[in-house]
Amino acid sequence: MINKQWHLVSRPSGEATVDNFKLVETPVPDPEGGQVLVRNHYLSLDPYMRGRMNDMKSYALPQPLNAVMQGGTAGEVVASKNPAFGVGDKVVAFGGWQQFQLVDASHLAMLRKVDTRQVPLSAYLGAVGMPGVTAWVGLNTIIEPRAGETVLVSAASGAVGAVVGQLAKAKGCRAVGIAGGAEKCRVVVEEFGFDACLDYKLHADVKSLSKALREACPKGIDGNFENVGGKVLDAVMLNMNAFSRMAMCGMISGYNGEPIPLAAPQLILVNRMKVQGFIVSEHMQHWPAALQELGGLVAAGKLKYRESVAPDIESAPEAFLGMLKGKNFGKQLVKLI
Amino acid sequence: MINKQWHLVSRPSGEATVDNFKLVETPVPDPEGGQVLVRNHYLSLDPYMRGRMNDMKSYALPQPLNAVMQGGTAGEVVASKNPAFGVGDKVVAFGGWQQFQLVDASHLAMLRKVDTRQVPLSAYLGAVGMPGVTAWVGLNTIIEPRAGETVLVSAASGAVGAVVGQLAKAKGCRAVGIAGGAEKCRVVVEEFGFDACLDYKLHADVKSLSKALREACPKGIDGNFENVGGKVLDAVMLNMNAFSRMAMCGMISGYNGEPIPLAAPQLILVNRMKVQGFIVSEHMQHWPAALQELGGLVAAGKLKYRESVAPDIESAPEAFLGMLKGKNFGKQLVKLI
Repeated sequence: MINKQWHLVSRPSGEATVDNFKLVETPVPDPEGGQVLVRNHYLSLDPYMRGRMNDMKSYALPQPLNAVMQGGTAGEVVASKNPAFGVGDKVVAFGGWQQFQLVDASHLAMLRKVDTRQVPLSAYLGAVGMPGVTAWVGLNTIIEPRAGETVLVSAASGAVGAVVGQLAKAKGCRAVGIAGGAEKCRVVVEEFGFDACLDYKLHADVKSLSKALREACPKGIDGNFENVGGKVLDAVMLNMNAFSRMAMCGMISGYNGEPIPLAAPQLILVNRMKVQGFIVSEHMQHWPAALQELGGLVAAGKLKYRESVAPDIESAPEAFLGMLKGKNFGKQLVKLI
Repeated sequence: MINKQWHLVSRPSGEATVDNFKLVETPVPDPEGGQVLVRNHYLSLDPYMRGRMNDMKSYALPQPLNAVMQGGTAGEVVASKNPAFGVGDKVVAFGGWQQFQLVDASHLAMLRKVDTRQVPLSAYLGAVGMPGVTAWVGLNTIIEPRAGETVLVSAASGAVGAVVGQLAKAKGCRAVGIAGGAEKCRVVVEEFGFDACLDYKLHADVKSLSKALREACPKGIDGNFENVGGKVLDAVMLNMNAFSRMAMCGMISGYNGEPIPLAAPQLILVNRMKVQGFIVSEHMQHWPAALQELGGLVAAGKLKYRESVAPDIESAPEAFLGMLKGKNFGKQLVKLI
């Protein structure tokens, strides 16, 4: 049997392209003592992967060249030499862009069994996975919103943003989103239950977006969950309240290496703001509580999300590049089976 | 008797000038029930006053036009109709740019008696006053340095910066300053005991200053006490460590209204930094402990500071404008008597 996998073969200068990736075929290996063979059903595509394609100092080591693109996966055990895992078990792991993976399951953190009776397998890569926990940690440990406050989130239809707004609503906040396009904004309000959502594509400059934000957030913004940076952030800054908090989660607008200056950092002082960056993998102590809450909400139908699903392993790079341009709607996945 | 006082008569467009101020002569009033007449010995000149000269949204109301310039003062009671204050008492207050002030001392916060046996009267406007407490609050409540960490402070020879570095040293940190000119840097190291001080005037661009910072802070920067903003801050950002903290205290480089963008805000995310603005007057709960510690250190000769003293009421505007350009050395005062 053949295992198709995508390798990173060159680093982008500027925008990433499909030529940075190469499809490689290898034999599917057999598990040995303690190992488990997993067939991946879903690959997770996430914005952080673009940052790791660059060879520069960051919080994570760069993605190695000529090796399988790393990333989260959800699948099924198809062969096991480990008593803790049986054939048919549904599992999530960090298996990378490939159809099969061999896991040394003696390291428990490498492979986690999940219950798919009430929560779909794919959700463990989204609302009940890393993106959902990212939303939970940023909101609960940095923004710490109180009932009646206004919480803003950019990329609001995305895997992280959609959860931020719904958790904020559940805490009694006004939740306002920013997204790209009328249909995304409609879903953010009508399906996810945000109070308002602004289409940044309708606003040519910072001034116009700031004015729209002032109307959508009549009491100003107390908490901002930042996923994009750049001019959207400049407009948000102009509407932040005194003693407001900003969780800095993503800067997708700068992933291609272009400068994305913050126009008015003095507002951090003027408004006595707290601006804090975080990486969800450094907050492991919060994962169990977060996953339990998020799983319960999804099972109960109280936490909604959207998925964009690419159809096969071959389509992974194109789906990834499209996601970086906002062509996805919600969590971007690749379905392999 | 005549009371000379400076009024703000126009708002600056761009750089402030002496024409924004006007010297006015009024009769010295007599105290009535509960009131105290104070003769000011020292006026405090502080960078925050420049911000208040603009008519824009900020944390404080703008300085009113055609009224006495507001500011901290230290002086002596010369007439009293209040049993809590006697002639000869040394006091600090918020008396403004004038020779005499009438204080309704029934509001205790308006007038505070100070002990000048071991601490000079002028120090209550500097190291044992608002600037010293500013250093204490930013360092202890935002940066929270641990022994062995590196703390950087800009405007290091100034009333706030000098205290930041000396308190950091006392906690076992490496203290590094940035100041303007060789003589200021010499004093910061030799008199104030910093480990190093960089002269920003020797560095034409961000890259050059960043390189010098890397040499002065071989383990990177864990805590930054920001007093200036602009290109100095850009260079500092390039040397901040993972999980570093920044107390945003001043943005003197932007007080004239010109843009001072932050070049690389994504570093807040990459390094999981906390950046927090603060205003010392909103942390009144810390003032008693801070003043007690600072007063004890000054009395014991363990906390050093410099003063620039303008000679008379007439010289106040010029001294103020010079301070904004860094012509002062340490706390800028006006001596009236």
